[in-house]
Order: sequence, then structure tokens, then C-alpha cells
Amino acid sequence: MQYHVNGDLVDESDATVSVRDRGFQYGDAAFETLRAYGGQTFAWPAHANRLSATCDALGIDHGLSDRDLRSRVHETLAANDLADAYVRLSITRGVQSGRLAPDDDTDPSVVVVVEPLPRGGVDGERIWDVPATARTTDVQAVPDTCVPSVAKTHNYLPGVLARIDAGDADEALLVDDDGHVTEGTTSNVFFVDDGVLHTPSLDLDVLPGITRWAVLEIARDAGIPVEEGHYEPEAFYDADEVFFTNTTWEVRPVAELDDATYTTCRVGAALARQFAREVEKRHY
Amino acid sequence: MQYHVNGDLVDESDATVSVRDRGFQYGDAAFETLRAYGGQTFAWPAHANRLSATCDALGIDHGLSDRDLRSRVHETLAANDLADAYVRLSITRGVQSGRLAPDDDTDPSVVVVVEPLPRGGVDGERIWDVPATARTTDVQAVPDTCVPSVAKTHNYLPGVLARIDAGDADEALLVDDDGHVTEGTTSNVFFVDDGVLHTPSLDLDVLPGITRWAVLEIARDAGIPVEEGHYEPEAFYDADEVFFTNTTWEVRPVAELDDATYTTCRVGAALARQFAREVEKRHY
Repeated sequence: MQYHVNGDLVDESDATVSVRDRGFQYGDAAFETLRAYGGQTFAWPAHANRLSATCDALGIDHGLSDRDLRSRVHETLAANDLADAYVRLSITRGVQSGRLAPDDDTDPSVVVVVEPLPRGGVDGERIWDVPATARTTDVQAVPDTCVPSVAKTHNYLPGVLARIDAGDADEALLVDDDGHVTEGTTSNVFFVDDGVLHTPSLDLDVLPGITRWAVLEIARDAGIPVEEGHYEPEAFYDADEVFFTNTTWEVRPVAELDDATYTTCRVGAALARQFAREVEKRHY
Repeated sequence: MQYHVNGDLVDESDATVSVRDRGFQYGDAAFETLRAYGGQTFAWPAHANRLSATCDALGIDHGLSDRDLRSRVHETLAANDLADAYVRLSITRGVQSGRLAPDDDTDPSVVVVVEPLPRGGVDGERIWDVPATARTTDVQAVPDTCVPSVAKTHNYLPGVLARIDAGDADEALLVDDDGHVTEGTTSNVFFVDDGVLHTPSLDLDVLPGITRWAVLEIARDAGIPVEEGHYEPEAFYDADEVFFTNTTWEVRPVAELDDATYTTCRVGAALARQFAREVEKRHY
């Protein structure tokens, strides 16, 4: 595998950052996880906007155009002969003086990591084998007052600790101080009750997932009633079906959440099919 | 400068970690900042204990002995011919599979970075030129429910954002949800009022600083009344003197905090002198 590091394509084994890079020392970095389908990145403008929002929230003025960043992603895909892939694009504040306060001048580190990832799709191979198991966790997401929740950063320890807490479950579900479910550690979460699609609203500390947005659009277009709101875990336990969305899983049904089990994912599956159709229409 | 990376001494320019290292991707790493005085690390057992507490909190089972870690620090000091130095020792969860949940087997990355740092000391050169300016900030420290506050990790963005918020001030003072001052972004904070030394207590989200602990010991030995408690910023504004402690600054007087100014740091200076005497007794 070849990765892109600071403008150069390098072998995976040579793809490194300095131990003095602020991305390493402080997690002082923004990232996006993207999918490539048929050699093209999915929803690039939405990812570029969110990356830009993260950099604004962190005050990282990297000086690179969206076009330049996108080229680096596509060069990396081409170098590895990858059409259907996972992509992680990171921008760090780079190496600076030893002080915690950033310098005014930023020489960012830009890293693109790719991995082959089969596309789901109508007749494709799914990245997940079976529906997910999930557990709610006492580990909480970082509040907006510490790091803005719109920011997707390398400060990912609460997610790591939540996954450890969830044991052998596939995903951990985060619950905020008021007892409301917010999101999974790497996913957004939905439930369907009496034909209405529900998901935690963005006024909570919820990352605005690109797949979450795409699925909501598809549901509205399909005339499925949608409600974004505040829900306690019980609403998920009592639901007819629960599913996660993220860039790699796309739509992944949930079979178990704590002691609740779900035997169907009818609406989720319909949304997944339509998502796959739209991907195929645009990318193949 | 030579650094120590995964068992080898390497030139600063070759001191790197993989872009797939979890320390880079997620800030999934523990660290300690240490001082070397006269070629020996100060308070090594206390730092080793805290590093161990951090690794326990993160579930990082690195399998290395304190003795091994200490040797790497001392080899790095020796390779650079450094007696009085700043040392940063980091242990990450290393490179693993691409999943967020850690694997059971850990092949940690261990990094030692050093920099020359003059010792303060009775007749020494101080690392800080002038008393500090400080500002309280609305950016909050990560609560214990997200990442245990005892843990010193590479998830340091709230500190970075607080320093940005504090503008040209030397340090930002963090205040918790209940309005209590907890700590600086890289320091503990004290104030003196009517001859009594006060500092936020460890039941708040306060990192148990090694210099904080040393200064409290010295104060108690000197018969200075000490109170650890919960204080709002006003208590600091109204105090006779305010100072920060950390490994690099040792004891640093504060000249300004928001709109409050301080013209003296009598108790702080006495504690600094005694701290220096104890360092010199042990290390030279």
C-alpha cells in the first residue's frame, strides 16, 4: 500500500510523522473518513466542508485548497489501483515550537491513508458480515465546551474507552449528561417506531455524519416520516428496528442493544438499497 | 538532538511514528513531562506511578518495566550530553488493526524526546523570564466521565484551544461546570490569602501534578497552613499572591489574572527557593 504524506506518495512502511508533530503530541489534527466508489470519492463537497469546519474550530489555517486535498486523495487511490476503498485524510498543525500555544505560522502535515474496501451496493459485497451488537456505555463524549462537537479530531480517546467498555459488542452507544442517546463511537444511530424514522438531533453533541445526512435525504424523498429529537435508551429498546450509519458501514442493522433484540430492519434495509442505488448511479 | 524511539537512539530528523500508530490517529497514548537535574530525573518514582495510572486508565498494557523506561530516558540524556533537561516520555498503543477497539495484543511505541533546559535552582537560570500573565477561559477540561482526569494523555486539544482563547497570556486557567477553578492547561495553580496557601483539591478534575505535590510537602514541612478546596476565580482575584507550578516552570509567580494584578509572590518565592534547595541536595 502507498500513502500520501506531505505531498509525496510513500510506501506504507515509510509513511510517518515526526514525534514532535502536534498531531502526535496533542492529537492537534482534523480528519475525515471517506469512501471511494468506482475510483471517485463519495460526497466530497460535504466532507470538504466538514473538514473545513473542523479546521476552523481548531484554528488550523492549513492554506490548502479543497482541490489540492482531493487531488492527493485521488493520487493515493490511483497509486494503489483502488476503485472501492476506505480513505482517511488527516491535517495536523505540524511541527512547531515546543509550546502548547500554537505559533501563528502553520506548516501542516497532510496524510492520506487508504485501504481496499468492497462496496456494499445493490449486488455488492457488504463490509459488515452480520447485524451489529451494541451496548450503551457510561463513557461520555467530550462536551461542546471542551472541543466543539462539529470537529472531527485526533482526540478520540473517549471513543476508544467506550469501545473497551462495550467489550465484544460491535459498537458503543453514547449517552449524554441528560440521559439522551447521542451517537455511536464511529457512527450515527437511528430507530424506527410505528413507521417513523427517528435519530438524535444535531443540537445534542452529535457529529453531523455525512451518511446520516444522506439517509435522512433519502427517507424524506421516499416519504418516510422523519423526526430528529432527544431520546433516552428506552426509546431504542422499544423500537421496531435500530440501525447505525457511517461511511464504511453505510447502513448497518442492529440485532442487539443491551438486553433488547431486534428481528427486523425493514426500513433500514430499504434505505440501504436506495443509498446503494444512488451511489451506483453517480459512480459507475 | 537524539531521541529514543522504540528502543533505538535516532537523530531528531529520523524520530518518527507510523501514520497508522494509534498515538497519532486517536491520541491513544500516555505521557509524562519530566525534568532532569544534574543528569538524573527528578521524582522518577512519582512520574512512573502516574504513567502507570494513565496506562491503567487507558487499558494500555505495555509490558515494560519502570527500570527499562528509566534507562531509555537516561540513555537519551547521555546521548545528548544533557544534565539539565526537559524530558517527554510517551507510550502509545502502537500500530494495530484499523478498528477503533484495541486488539488484545499491544506492541507499544515508546518515545523519549529531550531538550536542554537550564535548571532554576538557588543560583541557577530560570526557565521563565518574567512572572506569568493568565486568563480564565470558557474552554473546559475534559470531564472525568470522558477520560479519567488522572490520565495524562495525547488528547490535549482542550488545552490547545484554551491557550488560543487566552491570546497572548502565558497560561489559561480552566474553570469547571460549577464555576470552580481547576488548573492551568499545563500547570497547577495556587493562591495565598492571609498567609494560608490554597489550591484546588484533587476531587475536582485536576491532574495530580508532581510539582504540586512537592510544593505542598514543602509548605507543610515549613509550617505554612495549607488548604485544598473548591475556589471560584474571585478567590484568586482577591488573593495576595498567585502562582503556577509545573515540571518545567517549577514555581512561577503570576503578575496578572484577568483584571487582577499581583505585586508580590513572597510565599511562592520561599517555596521555590526551598524546592531548589531540595533539588540541589538530591541531584548535585
